[in-house]
Amino acid sequence: MKIITAIQEMHDYISRLKRRGHAIGFVPTMGALHAGHMSLFAAAAAGNEKVVASIFVNPAQFAAGEDFEKYPRDIKKDLKMLKESKNVHCVFTPDAKDIYPESYATYVELAGEMPKIMEGITRPTHFKGVTTIIAKLLNIVKPGMIYLGQKDLQQAVILKKMIKDLDYPAQAVICPVIREKDGLAMSSRNVYLTPEQRNSAPVLYKSLQMAQSMIELGERDAEVLVKEIKRKLKDENVEIDYVEVVDPDTLAKKERISDSTAIVAVIYVGKIRLIDNVVIELKEK
Amino acid sequence: MKIITAIQEMHDYISRLKRRGHAIGFVPTMGALHAGHMSLFAAAAAGNEKVVASIFVNPAQFAAGEDFEKYPRDIKKDLKMLKESKNVHCVFTPDAKDIYPESYATYVELAGEMPKIMEGITRPTHFKGVTTIIAKLLNIVKPGMIYLGQKDLQQAVILKKMIKDLDYPAQAVICPVIREKDGLAMSSRNVYLTPEQRNSAPVLYKSLQMAQSMIELGERDAEVLVKEIKRKLKDENVEIDYVEVVDPDTLAKKERISDSTAIVAVIYVGKIRLIDNVVIELKEK
Repeated sequence: MKIITAIQEMHDYISRLKRRGHAIGFVPTMGALHAGHMSLFAAAAAGNEKVVASIFVNPAQFAAGEDFEKYPRDIKKDLKMLKESKNVHCVFTPDAKDIYPESYATYVELAGEMPKIMEGITRPTHFKGVTTIIAKLLNIVKPGMIYLGQKDLQQAVILKKMIKDLDYPAQAVICPVIREKDGLAMSSRNVYLTPEQRNSAPVLYKSLQMAQSMIELGERDAEVLVKEIKRKLKDENVEIDYVEVVDPDTLAKKERISDSTAIVAVIYVGKIRLIDNVVIELKEK
Repeated sequence: MKIITAIQEMHDYISRLKRRGHAIGFVPTMGALHAGHMSLFAAAAAGNEKVVASIFVNPAQFAAGEDFEKYPRDIKKDLKMLKESKNVHCVFTPDAKDIYPESYATYVELAGEMPKIMEGITRPTHFKGVTTIIAKLLNIVKPGMIYLGQKDLQQAVILKKMIKDLDYPAQAVICPVIREKDGLAMSSRNVYLTPEQRNSAPVLYKSLQMAQSMIELGERDAEVLVKEIKRKLKDENVEIDYVEVVDPDTLAKKERISDSTAIVAVIYVGKIRLIDNVVIELKEK
C-alpha cells in the first residue's frame, strides 16, 4: 500500500494508473476509521482495479468553535486498518498547508437551499468547505467512482449534485449506514461518548425504526411521524436538533410519505452531535 | 478535425487520448475567432500533441443588460478558420442547456479582492461565471496546458489562481496580445465599431505606449502615468472606465513602477467597451 503526502506525487501516480487504463475508485475520509469506512473501501475494491483513500481532517468544513482541534486523529491505527483491509492501494495524506496555502482563495459552493437547510442551519459554512475539498481531491485523484456514506445523507446529495454540475467524470456511489449491534450508526465521533451517553445514543436509530414501522402500518403523514420520533427522543432525555422528512435525491421537504422518502434526525447527547437517517422505498399497490 | 457537442462524447474522446499518453493543450474561446485566438491555437499546437478548442458563449459571465444576446457568433466561419489553422484536433461546441441544465446550482468563485476590482467594479458577477465555466471545461477536457490571452489580464490572473488553488493538473500559459497594424488589440467586440469609432480606438494602446516611453525615460510614479494616460484618452474624446497600475501576478495596486508592472486601461468608444494592457519588466541597475 502506497502512502503519498505530496500533491504532485499523487498527480504523477494517478497519471501512471490512467495510462495503464486502470479504473480508479476513491474514498475520501477524515480518518478515525471504523467499520463504516471499511465498507466503503470494500465497495470501491469490488468495483475498481485501484482504490485510493484520502485521510484529511478538512479545516474548511469546521467553523470556529466546532471540534476541528479535537476531532479524533489516529493515523497509525488508520494506516494499519487500511493495510489489513487489503482493499486500498494508495492512501493520500496531504498536509493542510499544501491543501490551503496562505493565499488560498477559491471555493466551490452550491447556490440555493440545499446547503442551507438541515445541517446548514447550525453549520452555515460547512458544505462550502465540503464541496471545496472534494473538488480539490477529485482534481488530484481523478477517480471514475467516488464512494460516500449514506450516514451523512445531505453531504452525499450535495456532493452528487456538485459532481454532476461541474461535469466531473466520476460516478458517486452512496453506501448504506453501518451500525453497531444496538443500531447506533458508526461514527468517528462516537469515541467521545461516555458510557452513560453511549447507553442513550441508540434511541436515535430506534426512533427512526419506530417511524419505519408506523409507515409499514400505513401512516403517511410526515408531521405525525416527526412528532412521534421527537416524543421518543424526549423520553430518553436527549436534546433534539432537528427531525426532517425529505426527498432523498433533492432534500425537498415532504408532507406525505410516498415513493422514496428519507427521515433524518440529529440529536445532542451531552455535547456530542449524532446524526442518522433511514431511506424508505414505498411500493404502493 | 473532430467536432463534438455532447459532454459525454468529450469525456470518452479525452479518455482515449489519455490512454495513449497524449499531451492535451486546451484553448477555451467564445468563438468570433480572430488572429488573437489563432496565436493561442498555434502556441497550443507547438507545446502539445493534441489541441482541443472550445467555442461556447458562456451566459454565466454576462449580467442582465450586458451583450450576451448580441455577442458576435459565426460558428461556420469559426470552424473554417480552425480547420485551416491545422493546429486544432478537436472543437468542443456544447449546448447551453447541457452546460447549465435547469436545476444547475454549483459555482466556483474566488474570495477576496481579485474578482471585485477593475472589471469587477462594472461587472460584479462576471468572474464567478468565468471561473465556473473554466472549472467545468477543465473537468471535461482535462488538459495538461491551458492557453489564455494576456489581453484579458485580470481573467488570466484569476484563472491561474483558480487552477492552482483547486489543484488542477494543468499549467496556464498566458500568450501576448495580438494587435492590428495601428496597435488596436484584437477583440471579437471590435466588429461592433463604426468606421469613425474604429479611427478613435487605437488611442487606447497609444496611451499605454506613451506611458511605456515615460517609464523608459525614468518616470516611476504610477499616479503621474495614470494622469497622463487619462489626459491622452480625453484628447480623443473617448470615455474612460478605469486606468490601473498593478502587479501582473497579484493585481495588487502599485504606487511606484518596479520589477513587473501591468498598466491596464479600459475605455468606451460609443457603447463599445475596449480593454488593453501592457506589462513592463523593469531591470534596474
